[in-house]
Order: sequence, then structure tokens, then C-alpha cells
Amino acid sequence: LRQGMSEVIFCEGKTKDQVLKIFERMIERGEVNIIGTRASREQYEYLREHLKDDVIYYDTGRIICAKRVEIIKNPKGHVAVVSAGTADLKVAEEAAIVLEILGNNVKRMYDVGVAGIHRLFAHLDEIQSANAVVAVAGMEGALASVVAGLVSKPVIAVPTSIGYGANFKGLSALLTMLNSCANGVCVVNIDNGFGAAVVAHMINSLANQNL
Amino acid sequence: LRQGMSEVIFCEGKTKDQVLKIFERMIERGEVNIIGTRASREQYEYLREHLKDDVIYYDTGRIICAKRVEIIKNPKGHVAVVSAGTADLKVAEEAAIVLEILGNNVKRMYDVGVAGIHRLFAHLDEIQSANAVVAVAGMEGALASVVAGLVSKPVIAVPTSIGYGANFKGLSALLTMLNSCANGVCVVNIDNGFGAAVVAHMINSLANQNL
Amino acid sequence: LRQGMSEVIFCEGKTKDQVLKIFERMIERGEVNIIGTRASREQYEYLREHLKDDVIYYDTGRIICAKRVEIIKNPKGHVAVVSAGTADLKVAEEAAIVLEILGNNVKRMYDVGVAGIHRLFAHLDEIQSANAVVAVAGMEGALASVVAGLVSKPVIAVPTSIGYGANFKGLSALLTMLNSCANGVCVVNIDNGFGAAVVAHMINSLANQNL
Amino acid sequence: LRQGMSEVIFCEGKTKDQVLKIFERMIERGEVNIIGTRASREQYEYLREHLKDDVIYYDTGRIICAKRVEIIKNPKGHVAVVSAGTADLKVAEEAAIVLEILGNNVKRMYDVGVAGIHRLFAHLDEIQSANAVVAVAGMEGALASVVAGLVSKPVIAVPTSIGYGANFKGLSALLTMLNSCANGVCVVNIDNGFGAAVVAHMINSLANQNL
Amino acid sequence: LRQGMSEVIFCEGKTKDQVLKIFERMIERGEVNIIGTRASREQYEYLREHLKDDVIYYDTGRIICAKRVEIIKNPKGHVAVVSAGTADLKVAEEAAIVLEILGNNVKRMYDVGVAGIHRLFAHLDEIQSANAVVAVAGMEGALASVVAGLVSKPVIAVPTSIGYGANFKGLSALLTMLNSCANGVCVVNIDNGFGAAVVAHMINSLANQNL
Amino acid sequence: LRQGMSEVIFCEGKTKDQVLKIFERMIERGEVNIIGTRASREQYEYLREHLKDDVIYYDTGRIICAKRVEIIKNPKGHVAVVSAGTADLKVAEEAAIVLEILGNNVKRMYDVGVAGIHRLFAHLDEIQSANAVVAVAGMEGALASVVAGLVSKPVIAVPTSIGYGANFKGLSALLTMLNSCANGVCVVNIDNGFGAAVVAHMINSLANQNL
Amino acid sequence: LRQGMSEVIFCEGKTKDQVLKIFERMIERGEVNIIGTRASREQYEYLREHLKDDVIYYDTGRIICAKRVEIIKNPKGHVAVVSAGTADLKVAEEAAIVLEILGNNVKRMYDVGVAGIHRLFAHLDEIQSANAVVAVAGMEGALASVVAGLVSKPVIAVPTSIGYGANFKGLSALLTMLNSCANGVCVVNIDNGFGAAVVAHMINSLANQNL
Amino acid sequence: LRQGMSEVIFCEGKTKDQVLKIFERMIERGEVNIIGTRASREQYEYLREHLKDDVIYYDTGRIICAKRVEIIKNPKGHVAVVSAGTADLKVAEEAAIVLEILGNNVKRMYDVGVAGIHRLFAHLDEIQSANAVVAVAGMEGALASVVAGLVSKPVIAVPTSIGYGANFKGLSALLTMLNSCANGVCVVNIDNGFGAAVVAHMINSLANQNL
Ligand SMILES: Nc1ncnc2c1ncn2[C@@H]1O[C@H](COP(=O)(O)O)[C@@H](O)[C@H]1O
Ligand SMILES: Nc1ncnc2c1ncn2[C@@H]1O[C@H](COP(=O)(O)O)[C@@H](O)[C@H]1O
Ligand SMILES: Nc1ncnc2c1ncn2[C@@H]1O[C@H](COP(=O)(O)O)[C@@H](O)[C@H]1O
Ligand SMILES: Nc1ncnc2c1ncn2[C@@H]1O[C@H](COP(=O)(O)O)[C@@H](O)[C@H]1O
Ligand SMILES: [Mg+2]
Ligand SMILES: [Mg+2]
Ligand SMILES: [Mg+2]
Ligand SMILES: [Mg+2]
Ligand SMILES: [Mg+2]
Ligand SMILES: [Mg+2]
Ligand SMILES: [Mg+2]
Ligand SMILES: [Mg+2]
Repeated sequence: LRQGMSEVIFCEGKTKDQVLKIFERMIERGEVNIIGTRASREQYEYLREHLKDDVIYYDTGRIICAKRVEIIKNPKGHVAVVSAGTADLKVAEEAAIVLEILGNNVKRMYDVGVAGIHRLFAHLDEIQSANAVVAVAGMEGALASVVAGLVSKPVIAVPTSIGYGANFKGLSALLTMLNSCANGVCVVNIDNGFGAAVVAHMINSLANQNL
Repeated sequence: LRQGMSEVIFCEGKTKDQVLKIFERMIERGEVNIIGTRASREQYEYLREHLKDDVIYYDTGRIICAKRVEIIKNPKGHVAVVSAGTADLKVAEEAAIVLEILGNNVKRMYDVGVAGIHRLFAHLDEIQSANAVVAVAGMEGALASVVAGLVSKPVIAVPTSIGYGANFKGLSALLTMLNSCANGVCVVNIDNGFGAAVVAHMINSLANQNL
Repeated sequence: LRQGMSEVIFCEGKTKDQVLKIFERMIERGEVNIIGTRASREQYEYLREHLKDDVIYYDTGRIICAKRVEIIKNPKGHVAVVSAGTADLKVAEEAAIVLEILGNNVKRMYDVGVAGIHRLFAHLDEIQSANAVVAVAGMEGALASVVAGLVSKPVIAVPTSIGYGANFKGLSALLTMLNSCANGVCVVNIDNGFGAAVVAHMINSLANQNL
Repeated sequence: LRQGMSEVIFCEGKTKDQVLKIFERMIERGEVNIIGTRASREQYEYLREHLKDDVIYYDTGRIICAKRVEIIKNPKGHVAVVSAGTADLKVAEEAAIVLEILGNNVKRMYDVGVAGIHRLFAHLDEIQSANAVVAVAGMEGALASVVAGLVSKPVIAVPTSIGYGANFKGLSALLTMLNSCANGVCVVNIDNGFGAAVVAHMINSLANQNL
Repeated sequence: LRQGMSEVIFCEGKTKDQVLKIFERMIERGEVNIIGTRASREQYEYLREHLKDDVIYYDTGRIICAKRVEIIKNPKGHVAVVSAGTADLKVAEEAAIVLEILGNNVKRMYDVGVAGIHRLFAHLDEIQSANAVVAVAGMEGALASVVAGLVSKPVIAVPTSIGYGANFKGLSALLTMLNSCANGVCVVNIDNGFGAAVVAHMINSLANQNL
Repeated sequence: LRQGMSEVIFCEGKTKDQVLKIFERMIERGEVNIIGTRASREQYEYLREHLKDDVIYYDTGRIICAKRVEIIKNPKGHVAVVSAGTADLKVAEEAAIVLEILGNNVKRMYDVGVAGIHRLFAHLDEIQSANAVVAVAGMEGALASVVAGLVSKPVIAVPTSIGYGANFKGLSALLTMLNSCANGVCVVNIDNGFGAAVVAHMINSLANQNL
Repeated sequence: LRQGMSEVIFCEGKTKDQVLKIFERMIERGEVNIIGTRASREQYEYLREHLKDDVIYYDTGRIICAKRVEIIKNPKGHVAVVSAGTADLKVAEEAAIVLEILGNNVKRMYDVGVAGIHRLFAHLDEIQSANAVVAVAGMEGALASVVAGLVSKPVIAVPTSIGYGANFKGLSALLTMLNSCANGVCVVNIDNGFGAAVVAHMINSLANQNL
Repeated sequence: LRQGMSEVIFCEGKTKDQVLKIFERMIERGEVNIIGTRASREQYEYLREHLKDDVIYYDTGRIICAKRVEIIKNPKGHVAVVSAGTADLKVAEEAAIVLEILGNNVKRMYDVGVAGIHRLFAHLDEIQSANAVVAVAGMEGALASVVAGLVSKPVIAVPTSIGYGANFKGLSALLTMLNSCANGVCVVNIDNGFGAAVVAHMINSLANQNL
């Protein structure tokens, strides 16, 4: 009855002390590469002070990692993380960092939104050769459809809450992605870079399993 | 206090007789190129029987035109009407036919949805040389953004109600288009091919005015 | 610029003749296993009459297949299709049939909704050994989370429009699945069994690729 | 025309002084076990200073109780309060504390969300032997359905606003619970632990009445 | 792992034959008082023809009952079913009939909507003496709050889809009931008379258990 | 082309200086009883300092009045302002104060929510003898229907944003009031005590006109 | 505890026989001018056959009136009923007919929508001299604001469900009217011409009372 | 593949340093009239300090412009910017300033909301002679329809988030504008003065092209 990867700590809304307690408990259990998502710099600094062990903070992705151990679980191929605008960076980095910690090769292609589609085409090779693509976009979220039209591997679409007005905090991009007319798109919650990373990691692991 | 073009009859929800009465009144006033939109074949056949004058029916666009007179009001350049899928045809044709009756050159590019973006690129010249583009798309509605990224003229985006589930009868495409990250996009109501045609016609008229 | 699998025909809303035309064109191109989804029995019977070639109709899944050729593209392992209630059958079968035509082994587990969770546990082995799970559920859609908590492979969740009142035509199940607290869930549009099948097929293909 | 239990003070949005006034008036009337919900620590401290009488503060449940008198109104059996994640604690504790003050035995089972369903099964006996179950869950809110499938007593479901994105401040869990396919589920407002406690207390009182 | 009452058949959307099959299977298992909800007269007539056993049809409540056996499981006290307008009758009767088949005494008070509140007061005794109240109301759904203010037992509120315009198919009454400022209200899905009956039956059973 | 009463200043979102300017301009024009709504204490204090003239601040109603002159425009009868809970006070007072400044007799009946309906009945005479009733209520907003059922004069219903969860910032009360099954209810925007006061004032003026 | 006017029968959704029964009962009680709204021609014809008494049917307004007696309750002044488009006629006529039956003088001004504002100005006198205005409009519903800006009497706004796409069955016009920036607007439910008529009648009665 | 005007920097949500970097990069590229929208005074002051070049700040429109060069790209005619209330000023100025920087003549007509329609008529000439009209309005957003009814040139409607309650942050005005019954209206996102300016600039450029 286990989910196959260690628990990941969702830090938002937890006190510094609550976060510390959970990290300590997991360190005691001997776990490595312990991940905290949506973590503030304050939470990180509190951990760095109180944990005997090394802790790393990934700023843009807002991720804390304790007991960081470099492992390449999936040596064959990579996961592409593409994102539409600079404002989507946080979410894209959440996905990319989690993927790397879980042992995947990641290729980042940021700022390739559909309004300037030539930027996307400049990266066609790296996208088409990926085992899975994480496509992060806010506002109208059209990126996922365009990308899925260009590749034959699963595209995990992450709508972001970037935008204003009729964007309704990411609803616009979410609906766009759910209604994609391209084959091979599946969607996770608004801003859920972590969730997309887990799905992409599972897919990449399957692609690596028979080596 | 006049709007600058003759009244257009929205036939949906009107009885055959109500529609006939309005056409007769306008013919009496001496108007030509009288347009009825959202017209059924039944309404058309009733008119053909009862009007002494010639009436034309445009099937896909569901448009009736009485006293059809070929005029080219705007000889210079054209309006491009692009649409994403075959299901969007009705709305695209509503726009194209209205544009032609109002005296514009129209270039149609249908089935150029973003999931197969090479089809769109095959028409790049005709799109980029237009004075205005009407972009019709349902489902995720991403077409408007991609097109607007490729041209420097106004793009009038028409979301359609094509789709199911989280499409919510066109809401998805509507929000996508309102949130477009590309410059030069403006939006009309869901399925409102007629409305888009009027705006595009006004723009094309301005582009022709100083000849 | 190709998507890696032949086009699939969405038959809903198309006339019998339009559907026939598309099938004929694809047969001429020499394609096999040509799929039409959301097809009515009427559309099927029209095709059977007019096509020289054999056509098969899958009733519950509402799928037409022409030029059916049995291929096992992915011999290793299977995709599990689980569904919550008898009412979700249509969507689950759409997914299962498409998966089989594309060359995957499929294990069906229907009527395993969370209100009687022992029925789900009776199938634990078949679910946990799958390369990917398609989880189909309407009403509250809780099935996806429970299943994802039990397996370490990707779960593609399909909300259905089954239900009434505050179900809002599938919105309830859709939101449930997007908010899943279990790892490894991604979501497709309401009632989109076909879309889930394509994603699951892509994943299963990756899992079979290095054999 | 009385509701059968003394008024409870909803402290949120009231000034410290307004809260004090209401407590004083009720104490004067000779009431005991006077409850204030959604109370801040500041409001509590102000009361402790100004009231001659003892006041208790329950931190997690954000409840103030003045004139606390231990009574067991319902000696037979208990109410189970189950909750999905640590983030739902506040609401679960609001329910549990109110139930205890009203004179019920309460068994708490927290962190038994459906993504790790074995944790729920570990408490099966305590849940099945309860006279009523309060089920508190945010995000996808699937807990209520699973629990209701396991017991034959009423389940009062409390959606919480825990989550982000397509959670829409608890709407997701609310719809899930209203659409439960399991028998015996009824629902209260988002985050309304207090309301659930009152219904559960009324049910437990009926279960104790003929002793 | 059983829910404590036999399965109830939701007939809507099932073919006559499917419904017949399920009834036959349950009769074979020796069950009595087998209930089908949301049943059409056609489904009923088909069953009457094909089942060797007696079947009853409750018109307004749209309920089929096979193997009807009069039992009084809960002799002490009654459940009150109150409803606002004649249009809510169907849902109220669904609740009342299910309650009676399950063995409860039921007192019906229909057409006691809040716009003519004196009609409600005329029944005060029967409402206040009930072990539980099922309150059925569409449009603004205010009945549940007024009733809950008058009794000290649980009120199970059933919003109905009766209304038009800003009623949004029952959403209005649903929100009203979820926001009730009166103590002791819990809510089931729009039009879910059956669901309310099950909760009320469970409560009434607890109130009868120690006799 | 005039609206028949002097402009009222909506102070929210305006700087202290902007508000001052508008008051000064209106004073110069010789107006009296100049009203500012949604005014903060800060805005008031700034006006008191800088205006040569007297200014009054109504705290709960958040109203500034400059050049206050007591006039009774409508001597015959009164307007009743009823409200459900203490939390609705702000909005009720906005209505009451504006009504008084405009020259109406006002009778206030606060805290007469439907959960304790006897409190409402205690004021039956004052409500039934009013020329118009302003009914202010948040949460489920049932008050308007109950009141309208008791009187034969117009009831202007004001939904308030008081509540949480499925209240959706007043949407719940708004829908309730729009769906009122009682005759004679009309509705203004959420929290718009001012708007209700203007309508009630116009009605009361008509009731006084033939004296 | 009476509402001051006899009950009105909402015929939609009632069988011909149910409607007949209610009319018979009211005729027996000696009532006159008995009104049925949302009545179909079929219901009317059934009544004409079975009632000994005269019944009248108002086609566009879908109103049945039995025991029609011409009374002028309010001789002084009139109520103006203005509507935006021909499609809003049904609702406008529902209001106008009910107003006339209740004894008011009515002036109808139809097809005065804001897109051709000169048509509205042509009726300025009749609008400004009314005791109350009922403003009926679908689509964008702007009429109410423009009218309210021109008069100093109450404007009862009736949004209609006329429109398509982002009109969302009247939601668009409803929100427009609730947000009116003009003084003196109050709103009733979508398509609720009857409700507006009752409020306008009450106001006109007050304006006539002191004669 | 270029959009025909230089990139514009959306400053909201960017750090002072990020904004500075982008401005520096564009200055290096030799661009002039570099625009930053949604810019705070803080961002401006930081730029003024660190850039060697002159920078201008437009307060109300929240726009930064570096390397400001006066050019009149479109000498013939003007664009009219009309707005409803003082609260809509920010958005109207965003449109007006952007239009001026891009080289258009702009005529501003602010505070011409429909509740006082005579103020709008006072400017009829300037509106009717424009090549395009940008119509900015919050609350009920009726201005766009009234204006479009008076002119024969395109009206670009900008809903604003001004309002409260059922305004739902601009949704009300957005729906109004999308449903406009007047010809020639197209819509941009809520508060998107910039987007409207770009469309209006493109139209005005076309109107100037053949000189
Ligand atoms: N950024 C994230 N978004 C969504 N879910 C997450 C995220 N980070 C962690 N989780 C999930 O949340 C669970 C932990 O929640 P908690 O018990 O509140 O720490 C983990 O099991 C993860 O599956
Ligand atoms: N009217 C009803 N409303 C909601 N749920 C129902 C209703 N009638 C039956 N059910 C539930 O639906 C389940 C049967 O669904 P099905 O398997 O589709 O017949 C039963 O276990 C009942 O709990
Ligand atoms: N509390 C309020 N709610 C709604 N509208 C108001 C309110 N107070 C004033 N108004 C209206 O807002 C207009 C003034 O808006 P402004 O020009 O922004 O001061 C006045 O004409 C009033 O009709
Ligand atoms: N006020 C605005 N509203 C909407 N879009 C804008 C606005 N200002 C700039 N943009 C667009 O946003 C893009 C820049 O976004 P960014 O890369 O985040 O700076 C530009 O290409 C503009 O088209
Ligand atoms: Mg693809
Ligand atoms: Mg462009
Ligand atoms: Mg899993
Ligand atoms: Mg159960
Ligand atoms: Mg009670
Ligand atoms: Mg009344
Ligand atoms: Mg007025
Ligand atoms: Mg116009």
C-alpha cells in the first residue's frame, strides 16, 4: 500500500517549527533527498540553523531539499520543461527542480510562449526527443496544445495563475488545457509544478526501466 | 444618430412571418443586400415563396440575402478568415459571407488549428498581407494568439461553442482569447461571426478610405 | 511536425456523409485501424453499407473501426481501466477499446467505486502491476485519488458527466480529480475517454520501448 | 420557539469589546459552557483580563469557553471526528471541541486521507461503532464517501477551504461531498466544523435518549 | 464492510431491461422492499409484466417497490417531511415514500413555504415533535432556516431545482441552505429526496434503538 | 435630464484630497445635506479640518454629511429598515442614515433574522405600517421573503457579503432574494444600502405626494 | 398575515388539470381577475372548455385571466413599460398585462434599446411622467441605467434570457442591472415580468393613495 | 515572424531590478519610446536613478516611458478615449498614454457614463469623427453599447474591475460588452487599457496608410 516515492512536504501554511519537525522525523528514518515545496526563505533559514545536516534552497522554485544526494535514476533521455512567459518561471522551476532531485535529466526551455512562436521552434529537437514534456503556461495557456501537436510523447500541462481580469486566477489556462484539441495532453492543478513533475518522473522511469 | 450600415435581421427565434415582414419593409424602403443571420432553410424557403424578389441562401453560414447586389466597397487588400476545425465552419462562414456582402475581398483559411501548426504556416503570406484577420476557434481557442503573434494587423477573435465537458459552451475559448498574450487581439461574443465581420469590415473600410 | 499516430475522427455532430468521406480518404491513403469516436449506430450502419471494406462497431464505447488489424504494439504489461459505476461504462469502454486498437493489453475493472471499497481491493494486483491506470468516475470522482494512493504508476483520471444537481455536468468530478492529494494523478476533459487512452498508450509505449 | 441549545458566539469580525459584552450578558443570565467560535488569541486574552470568571482557549479549534462545566450529556457511545490532512486540523478541532463541551464522547482520527487508505482502515472499529461521524476534508474531499461506505450511521461531511488553484476555496470538496455516491452523507458549509458538531450532537442525543 | 441497508436502484438512464435484471437478481437473493428511485411509469409497467412478483409504483415520488412488506422498524416518533411549494412535491414524496418503506412513521406537511408563514405555524406541533425533519424547498430555499429555528432536532435540507432565471437549476436553494444561520441544518444534493430519507432514517433508527 | 436628487459621493477608493475637492465644489454650488458614502474615519477627519463648514460622521453607516439641514420631506408614514444579524449592521445603517438625511422617518429593526422568527413577529406592526421596507440580510438572506410575505408594500432587499464558504461574498443571499417566492420583492447589489435607500425614498415620496 | 393581493397561478410545469382545479377553487371563493402566468395556449383552451365562466388569453404575455373585471384602482398617472428589443416582448407584455389587470394605466414603449438611443428619447415625456418604470432588457441590459438616469422615479429592472453565448441565459443582463451606476434602480429575477409588475403596482398604489 | 511594434514591459509583479534589466537591454538595442505598463512609482524612481537616460512617469496611467521621442505616426484623425466614471481613469489613461506614445492623436472624454447621458452627447462630434473609439467602463459597462450606437467606426471596449458585490471584479462589465446589441463593438480583457490601445493604434494606422 505504498505510493513508491517518499512523502513530499507542502510547506505553505505550516509554521517553521512544524516544517522542522517533519524534516527531522524523515532524517531520523534515514531518508535522503527530502523535499519541501512552496517553502519560504524564512522556513529554509530556520531549517539551516536547527538541522545538523545540510539543507539547500532553490529560490525560484521555492524548494527546500535536505540530505541532497545526486542520483541519476533515469539516465536515458530527458524530460523537457517548457514555459510561456517569465512570470511562469516559479512554477516551471518547481517542476524542474523536483524532477532533478528525483533523478531525471531536465532540459529547460523558458519564455517560448505562442505569441512569438519562432522561439519555440528554435528548440524543436530538444522537445521532440524528450520522454515527456511538462508545459507550463498562464494567461491563455495555448502553449500545451501547440507543443502536443509537435511531439508524440505525453505532455503534462500545468496552468498557472499568472494573468489578470478574465484570467480568474488560472481558470482560463486550466480550461484551455483541458480542451486541448491536440493528442496526448493531460493536466494537473493550477500552479501544481510539483504534481506535473511526479507524473513526468513516473513516465520517464517507465521509459528507463528495460535498459 | 445612425450606425452607418443598414440593420441586419437576427432570424433565430423569429417566426417565418415575422422575418418576412421585416424583409418586405426593408425592400420597400429600397434597401439592397439585406442580410438575415442565423436563418434556417425553412425561413429561407418561406421568403423565396412570398417575396417577389430574388433571395439567396448561404447554407453553412445560415445567411439569407435579399436584393443581392455585387459591390466592392473595399478594393484594396482583403480580410483573412481563419478557423481551427471543421466544426467551426458555420461561424467562420457567417463571418466570411457577411464580409463579402458588405463589399470586402475575403480569403478563407479553414482547418488551420494549432494542433497541426504547419497547416497554418502554409498560409502565412495570405494572413500577413490582410488588413484584418477574423480568427474563429472553439475548444481551447489558441488559434487567435498564434495568429496575432504572426501579424501586425488587428485580429478579431471569435470563440465558438464547439467542444464538450470543461468547454462550458464556449467559455473556455472565450477566456483564452480575452487573455491572449499576443498584441492586437480583440474579442466578440461566442459564435458571433456576424459581429466580427462588422468590426473587420469597419477596419478594412478605413484601410481603403484614402485611395 | 507529425503527432505520431493517425488522425482519429470525432463523429459527433458530423453528418453520415461527412464521416464516410473522411473514412474513404483515409482508406485510400492505405491506413489501417482507422478510429471514429462518439459514433452513433446510424453512422456505423451507413459506413457498413457504403464502404467496400469491413467496419466494426463497438456499441458501449460508441467507436467505429475500419480496416481493423490486430497488432500488439506493447506486449509487455497492461493498462488498467477502472471505473466507479455502471453509468460510467460508456466512457470507460471508449478508453479501453481505443487502447486495444492502438495495440495495448487492457484489464478492465468496472463498478469499483469508493462507496464499496472492498470491490476495489479485490483487484489490487491487477491495478498495481499495470504500466498506467485510466480511472473513470462521475459524481464525486473520488476513485482517482484512492487508486493513485495504491499504485506508483501514472493515473490518468477521466471525470464523467454522470450525476445530477450539484454535479454540474461533471464539474464536480473534474475538480475532485484536479485537487487529488495523491501523487501521480493527471486529468483529461470530462467524458474524454479517448484522450485518456492516448496518454496511457504513449506511456505504455515508453514502458515497452527498450525490450 | 427556542432552538434547544444556548446561543454560540461567532467571534470573527467582532471587536474584542463586542465579544466581551456578549459573554458578560450570558454569564449574567447564569449560563454555563458559553462558547465563542472563530476566536483569536487576542480576543481570548482580552476576555481573560476583563471577565471575573475563568475562560479557556482551545488554540487549534479557535474556541473560547467561559464557565466551563464538565458534563456528559450523552454517556452511551461516541462521535467520531475523522479528517484527511494536517491542514484540516483547525476545522476538525472546532467540531471536536464543540462536541465535547456539549457533552459528547469524541474519538479523533486525524490524517486518515484517502491517498493513504491503510491509515483509515487502522481505525475501522472506532469509526464503525460511532453514533455519528464528522468527516472533515479539503482538496478533493473524497474522505466522506469512503467513510460513509464503511459505516451505517450518518456521516456529516465538512468540506474545508484547504487547497489551491482549482480548489476554489473549498468548492471542490463541497461539490464532491454533495455528490457522494455513498448512502448516509449530509453536508454543511465549507469550514463549518461548528455546524457539523451541532448536527452530530443532536443525533448522538437522540441515540442516548431512551436509556 | 457493508453499508447497513440493501442497495437502492437509481433507475434514471437505465433501460427497462437493465432495471428488470437488477430487480430479478435482488429478488433471487431473497430481499424484500426492493426500491427503485427516479423510475418512469414505463419502467414500472415493464417490471409488472415480467416479474412474477407484485410491484408497486408511487407516481409522484417516481418510486418502484418490489416485494413490498409492511414493517415498522422505528415505532417511536416520526420523521416530518415539510415542503415549500406544490412544485417541490416530487422530491418531497421521494423522501417520504423511501422513509415509509424503510419502516418509519412519516408526517407530511406540504405547501408551507415561507411567503405564507402562518401555514407553517399551523403545523408547529407535528414539526417540533419529530425526531428529524426533512425540509424540501426550491427557489430561495428559505424554509430550512425557518424550520431549524423552530426545532431542536436535525433538519436535513433538500434544495430542489424548481425555479427559473437566477435560480440556476437549484444552485440558489442549495447555497441558501448551506449558509443557514440556524443551528442543526445539514444539506444533501439538489433534488436528492432519497439521500435525505436515508440520513433521516438513520437518525430515527438511533432514536429508536434503546427502547 | 436630471436625476432628481443631488449627486452622492462614493468615497471608497478616493484619496482624502479628491473627496475634499468634491465636497468643496458642491458646497460652493450651495447644496445642503451633501452625502459621502463608504467613507473612512480618516476621510472624515480630513474634511473636518479643511472645510470651514460643519461635517458629521455616522460611524456604523460610514457616511459623511456636510451642510446637514434637518428636513422632513415625507412626513406621512415611515420606511422600515430590518436586518438579520449584527454583522449586517453596517449596510442597514448606510440605508437608514441616507433615508433620514433625504427626509424620511425611519424605523430600525435589527437582529430579526429568520432563525429566531419570534423576534421578527414582535415588530409586525411597525413593519406592516411602513410605506416601504428595506430588508438587509447576509448568509442565506431568507429575511426578505419572510418579510414580503407579511406586508403588502414594496420590499427592497439588500444582500450583504456577510458569511463564509459557500456564501461566496454575498452571492448566496443575492440569489435567495432574486428567487423570492413572495410578492413585492426587488433587489439591489450586494452591500448596496445606499441604493436601497434611494429606491425606498422615491417610493415614500410618491406615498407622500398627494397630501 | 395576508400579502394584500390574491394569489397568482404560475402555470408552467403544471398539468392542464392542476391549473383548472386551482382556477375553479378561486372562482368558488368569489375572486375576480384571477391571473395565471406562463400559461400555454393549450392550458388556456382546456380552461375555456371546462370553466363555465369567461376566460381571456393574452398571447404574447402568456397570461390567462378568469372573471376579468375592468377596474381602475390607480387613476392618477401611469406605469411605463419600456423594453429593449422585440425579443424581450414576451416579458414586457407579462408585466404590462398584469399591471393592467391590477388596475393601473400602462404606457408601453417597446424596441427602445440603447443601440439606437434616439428611439428612447422620442418617448422622454411618457417615461419621465410615470410613477414607476418597468425596464425590460436582455443581452447587455443597459437600458435600465440609461432610463434611470433620465427619471426621478423608481425603475424596476427586468433582465431577460434573450441572447446567446456569453449572455449565459440572462446572467449578463442581470449583473448589468444590479451594478447600475444610476440612482433608483432595483432588480427582479431574469424573465420575471410578473414580479416587476407587482412591485410597480404597489408603488403606483402608494402614489394614488392620498387622492 | 515579428509583431510590428517593439515589446512592451508588463511591470507588475516584476522586481525593480528585473524591470531595470529589460529597459537597459532595450536601450542598448537602440530602441526608443520604450514602454513599461502597470508600473509603480517605486519602479520608476529606481529607473530614474540607474538609467543614464531620461525616463518619464505617467502617474494615473502607471506608465514608464524611456527614450521618449515625439513622433506623429498617424497625423490624420484621432482616436477617442471615452470613460464612464472617475474610477475608470487609470485604465483610460493607460490606453490614452500608450496611444500617444505610439504616435496617435488622442481626444479624451472622461466621466461620460450613461447615467448622465447628456454629458456624452455634449461630445458627439469628437466621438463620431474618430477613426476608432476606446470605451472604458466598469460597474454595468453600458457605455460601449451607447457609444457604438452613435458611431460607424470600431469601438474597442475595455471593461474595468471598478465596482463591488455582483460586479465580481469586472465580470459584469465584461459580459455587458460581449453581449452588446450595437454593431462594431469588440472587447479586450478587464482593465486592459494597453491591449485596447494597441488594437486602436493598428486601426488608426490603417486609416492613415494611403495618405
Ligand atoms: N506543491 C505541491 N502541490 C500539490 N501537492 C503537493 C505539493 N507538495 C507536496 N504535495 C503533496 O502534499 C502531500 C503533503 O501534504 P502535507 O501533509 O500537508 O505536507 C504530499 O504527500 C504531496 O503529495
Ligand atoms: N434518487 C437517488 N439519488 C441519489 N442516489 C441514489 C438515488 N437512488 C439510488 N441512489 C444510490 O445510487 C446507488 C445505485 O446506483 P446504480 O448502481 O446506478 O443503480 C445506490 O447505492 C444508491 O445509494
Ligand atoms: N454606497 C454606494 N453604492 C453604490 N453607488 C453609490 C454609493 N454611493 C454613491 N453611489 C453612486 O455613485 C455615484 C458617484 O460615484 P463617483 O463619481 O465615483 O463619486 C453617485 O452618483 C451615486 O449614485
Ligand atoms: N498592461 C498590459 N496588459 C496586458 N498585456 C500587457 C500589458 N503590458 C504589456 N503587455 C504584454 O505583455 C508582454 C510582456 O510580458 P512580460 O514578458 O511579462 O514583460 C508584452 O509583449 C505585451 O504585449
Ligand atoms: Mg502530440
Ligand atoms: Mg500581432
Ligand atoms: Mg500513486
Ligand atoms: Mg454508510
Ligand atoms: Mg434548531
Ligand atoms: Mg408582500
Ligand atoms: Mg433616476
Ligand atoms: Mg456603431
